[in-house]
Amino acid sequence: MFIVCEGPGGSGKSTQAKLLTDKLRGFGKRVILTREPGGTELGEQLRRLLLDLHAEPVTPVAEALLYSAARAEHVAHLIRPALEAGEIVICDRFADSTLAYQGGGRGLDLSQLQAVQLFATCGLEPDLKLLLDLPVAVGLARRHADHESVNRLDAESLAFHERVRAAYLALAAANQDDWRVIDATESPDQVAANIWSAVRERVA
Amino acid sequence: MFIVCEGPGGSGKSTQAKLLTDKLRGFGKRVILTREPGGTELGEQLRRLLLDLHAEPVTPVAEALLYSAARAEHVAHLIRPALEAGEIVICDRFADSTLAYQGGGRGLDLSQLQAVQLFATCGLEPDLKLLLDLPVAVGLARRHADHESVNRLDAESLAFHERVRAAYLALAAANQDDWRVIDATESPDQVAANIWSAVRERVA
Repeated sequence: MFIVCEGPGGSGKSTQAKLLTDKLRGFGKRVILTREPGGTELGEQLRRLLLDLHAEPVTPVAEALLYSAARAEHVAHLIRPALEAGEIVICDRFADSTLAYQGGGRGLDLSQLQAVQLFATCGLEPDLKLLLDLPVAVGLARRHADHESVNRLDAESLAFHERVRAAYLALAAANQDDWRVIDATESPDQVAANIWSAVRERVA
Repeated sequence: MFIVCEGPGGSGKSTQAKLLTDKLRGFGKRVILTREPGGTELGEQLRRLLLDLHAEPVTPVAEALLYSAARAEHVAHLIRPALEAGEIVICDRFADSTLAYQGGGRGLDLSQLQAVQLFATCGLEPDLKLLLDLPVAVGLARRHADHESVNRLDAESLAFHERVRAAYLALAAANQDDWRVIDATESPDQVAANIWSAVRERVA
């Protein structure tokens, strides 16, 4: 089972991915928790290149290709081997982040981005996609309250983040079988409970 | 005018690209000579990552995406601005290198690679593609005679290089309007003369 957590910065994605991992482990499941960009040596190198506020910015097309290269490496070296070994994989961001941020946010062509994702993932699709949705202002306020963690994407304009949110909601609406939209303005406990019912429903 | 030099290591591509640049400059033309991967800060960083014999190898899909990311940056920041300023651009390797090496050599799907190239280059196509062709054994012998310059691709198997050559020849055969195949076993002077007639023919 391959579960991805998607959503903007400040949505509590990483916290919830960790809570879900702990809960599944509590039931004796073998779970790998990982994140994008990252999870491999190349991914962590590209993460610094892509998200460091002080690194030279690259063009949107190159940005999309670098995220996709990190993803290809992640799928081949970590995600697919873990799934084949019968483990549950929980991933903080996956291909839909590129569709939402570089498609919605940067305005790149969605069908071209989808073709690149198909190539990068060798067709691997998550079994469940959780969208932690919340108003842009709320997410940004949470991120900026924690100065240390503000990255290049957080620092984009409000309009950029509105386009990202709209793109995520459109992706979820277009494929309701794969996605569950979770209201991320609720308390962390309530969000965790809602995620847990989405996971149980998918397992059943 | 956008001219690319393609072919295996040891074909004399880089030398010939330099000779052609000098010759055109001798006629008072403004010419930019560049190479892939490279030509931008990101490109040079990725060049080290991709070609250094001691760097950790990445999967073929990630390799293709990293070359494509470097290309996207190269097109946006150097090639297209130069062409728009009326300069001639001569580039040592371009999109067809990815089709030949990652498609032919590594066996990745050619139509997927072409879709990725269309995305990376934003549809920019060379006006002339020069394929410096020679038997694999001859090219490898030339490369290995110069130990310093042997890179990760040179170090691949003979069968890999045979597939790369076959892929190049198939690309050239499929689009004879764009390509000129140059016999790279001839003397450097003769190769330069043949390239010069190909360029004059294209200008005419």
